[in-house]
Amino acid sequence: MTSPTPLSIGCLLFPGFQALDVFGPLDALNVLSYTTPLTLSIIGASLSPISTHPASQPTAIGQTIVPTHTFSSAPPLDVLLIPGGYGTRGSPPGLEEAIDFIRSRFPELKYMITVCTGSRLAARAGVLDGLRATTNKRAWLDTREMAPGVKWVAHARWVVDGKCWTSAGVSAGIDVVLAWVEEVYGREKAGEVAGVMEYERHEDSRWDPFAVANGLPVDE
Amino acid sequence: MTSPTPLSIGCLLFPGFQALDVFGPLDALNVLSYTTPLTLSIIGASLSPISTHPASQPTAIGQTIVPTHTFSSAPPLDVLLIPGGYGTRGSPPGLEEAIDFIRSRFPELKYMITVCTGSRLAARAGVLDGLRATTNKRAWLDTREMAPGVKWVAHARWVVDGKCWTSAGVSAGIDVVLAWVEEVYGREKAGEVAGVMEYERHEDSRWDPFAVANGLPVDE
Repeated sequence: MTSPTPLSIGCLLFPGFQALDVFGPLDALNVLSYTTPLTLSIIGASLSPISTHPASQPTAIGQTIVPTHTFSSAPPLDVLLIPGGYGTRGSPPGLEEAIDFIRSRFPELKYMITVCTGSRLAARAGVLDGLRATTNKRAWLDTREMAPGVKWVAHARWVVDGKCWTSAGVSAGIDVVLAWVEEVYGREKAGEVAGVMEYERHEDSRWDPFAVANGLPVDE
Repeated sequence: MTSPTPLSIGCLLFPGFQALDVFGPLDALNVLSYTTPLTLSIIGASLSPISTHPASQPTAIGQTIVPTHTFSSAPPLDVLLIPGGYGTRGSPPGLEEAIDFIRSRFPELKYMITVCTGSRLAARAGVLDGLRATTNKRAWLDTREMAPGVKWVAHARWVVDGKCWTSAGVSAGIDVVLAWVEEVYGREKAGEVAGVMEYERHEDSRWDPFAVANGLPVDE
């Protein structure tokens, strides 16, 4: 199951990304990298630091992260991690370039992993058309309307269709990335990473009290 | 329960901090700040970006965060958040200054919140002496030996003693900060924040399968 060469992982950033969408998965990958060689590129429109601050939430506090690569300098990628956040619902600087980047790099990927409304960006890039996918449960109805060519699943912590792993809102990113670690590196390694994180995994991809809480329709 | 003025929150950083120790709590505070005014200072030894990369883990990937204040320029604080990580076990640049900062600012705080081995830094600053506290469960035995003046609790997701809120490893930071939101802003607000994060809270501070998994002694 172990990859013979280190996987090249990229994480896409844009203004107004949700902090935990990025740092839940990346914390798991950081821990994985203690024992399993990986490379990581943090990819933005430029090398200028990128803020979580969403333009639509004027009172919001935020944090600022430093990219390592731009959309034009990013190396070949095996895995692309796409976070969500309020930035996906507006038009922050660099968002269209981020969508173009997803579209252009999708063919080379072994895995695309979206968290929360990151799946909106993948849908706008056209790479989810005809596939089953999920998203943040407060944004689900609106996302389905925006991208009717995608088979949106309401009741799911995450959904896998081909190489596309899409997860529900925010903290679901931790569960999807641990499920991905299990798929690629084995169940023992996924348990080890979760243990270091003192994180109780949701291992059932259909576990989703948030779809229920938000009154989403039963899946067909 | 609501504070009449925005709380001034500081988050201390040092090289080799654990990403989720910081961004679990800060994601919750980011969401809280959409509806509840707060201020946030990200505080480091200098304004240079600070990496999660731990010197003791040479193969580790990492991310780099931009501070907003230094130990000398930080504003008055109501709350200080102290993450853990491998950096707390070594001697990265700025760690002694971070410990001095904790010692000097502790009297002004209304709340100190530690995540994971962040409690080691608080213990080294002397501010936990005689108090009940907890830490990462893989570091618990070693931490008890290092700081015998603290009443270390083995089986706890988090512990509150006076104004000191100390939590277990990594993802426990999300639970302690949601418990703190409940204490300060009420149960409804904490549930609202957790709902936006699609996070299933552990609401029992004594819930701790990781103390059991690590074979820690029964608390006296």
